[in-house]
Amino acid sequence: MNSAVCLVLVSPRNPLNIGAAARAMSNFGFSDLRLVNAYDVAFREAKSAVGAGAVLKAARQFDSLGDALTDCRLVVGTTGSIAQKAPQPLLGLEQAAKKLRRCAGRAALLFGSEKYGLSNEDMSHCDWLLRIPSRPEHRSMNLGQAVAVCLYELIRGARASKPSAPARKYATGAHIELLVARLDEALSQSGYYAGSGVLRSRLRLRNLVKRLDLSERDAVVMVGMLRQILWKLSHP
Amino acid sequence: MNSAVCLVLVSPRNPLNIGAAARAMSNFGFSDLRLVNAYDVAFREAKSAVGAGAVLKAARQFDSLGDALTDCRLVVGTTGSIAQKAPQPLLGLEQAAKKLRRCAGRAALLFGSEKYGLSNEDMSHCDWLLRIPSRPEHRSMNLGQAVAVCLYELIRGARASKPSAPARKYATGAHIELLVARLDEALSQSGYYAGSGVLRSRLRLRNLVKRLDLSERDAVVMVGMLRQILWKLSHP
Repeated sequence: MNSAVCLVLVSPRNPLNIGAAARAMSNFGFSDLRLVNAYDVAFREAKSAVGAGAVLKAARQFDSLGDALTDCRLVVGTTGSIAQKAPQPLLGLEQAAKKLRRCAGRAALLFGSEKYGLSNEDMSHCDWLLRIPSRPEHRSMNLGQAVAVCLYELIRGARASKPSAPARKYATGAHIELLVARLDEALSQSGYYAGSGVLRSRLRLRNLVKRLDLSERDAVVMVGMLRQILWKLSHP
Repeated sequence: MNSAVCLVLVSPRNPLNIGAAARAMSNFGFSDLRLVNAYDVAFREAKSAVGAGAVLKAARQFDSLGDALTDCRLVVGTTGSIAQKAPQPLLGLEQAAKKLRRCAGRAALLFGSEKYGLSNEDMSHCDWLLRIPSRPEHRSMNLGQAVAVCLYELIRGARASKPSAPARKYATGAHIELLVARLDEALSQSGYYAGSGVLRSRLRLRNLVKRLDLSERDAVVMVGMLRQILWKLSHP
């Protein structure tokens, strides 16, 4: 069983899709399913579906995406759009799977709701986005099928090739949130938001921090720097 | 559109699965769908489903598998079973896809009914069989998902060589030096070096900043943040 990658369904609405995602996970050996803001009836119905099995029984529900990601060091969102304006880098599935397999510790693969996909707020939690190479004229895939294809690619490559680059210990979601919070505090206290600062929201701040692709070690160092700066700001 | 490979569903029973197969075909650029001995109601329902589109409209029904295959030069059956006793060679999906792509003329990819898979009679039409690398403890895949994974593998080889990641405009050395200098200044003024801070030299500070792999845009934003923090530190 692969416990290094967890699957996060954000706002899923259709019990058949939740069940299908769980089935593909079981087929390809993944066990950690997390649901954020799931439609409750859908989750209950999916749970009682035939063949849903162990994965659904062990699935966990969260109220916010941040809560679902606290132990995740690498967060990858899926998108069907190619002309997307999100600031995160967009990788093809194969390239993305390679990077995912190199992550030391837990990685999360995010799927948005059937109707709207991932929101900008959801994407601000992502290190990068991946896209399945579907046809430009018909990009939008069924959720269960998209999950199956992504998980297949993850295990395919693992069998085909041994990773050569060393595993990288990324900062966890908890580290990132702490860093964003401290930076936000320092900027607020410095009058950055009131002034000519470019970043006017915490969401954009998180986007910037996520782009840094931080290791756990560097994230900890930077939180330490900010703590000292904050101390000085309040003890002039 | 890929018209070299047609998809043949033998005795499908669930309209959702027929629709899902058609959708995956459309997503990955396949257009030739053939149904053998399909449950009639299921086919009609699938046809009227939203998003089923052109593939289902053009789908053809046949009474026997032989009739469906008259123009096919290579016939490949899918199976979830590994201990199967069919006399046909059994290949992994990746290897099978390679051979399928090399076929000149039309090839057929066969999927059996949701419940029983392909019969021995069906398999007797096959040149060989392919198996998706699902887990031994849970081999049996949902039909729509199995179709999606197979078609993805078929197109992957053709498209995967072109990464979609856009060129990235990294920060110049000048940007990095400016950022390091401002950060160094902020840390000095905050008493970071005198305290318990981990980084004790500008060189290690630069190492950290370089590891961030910054775009020019983000480097400029961060210099702006530090400028504001520095202003505040000297104007308490």
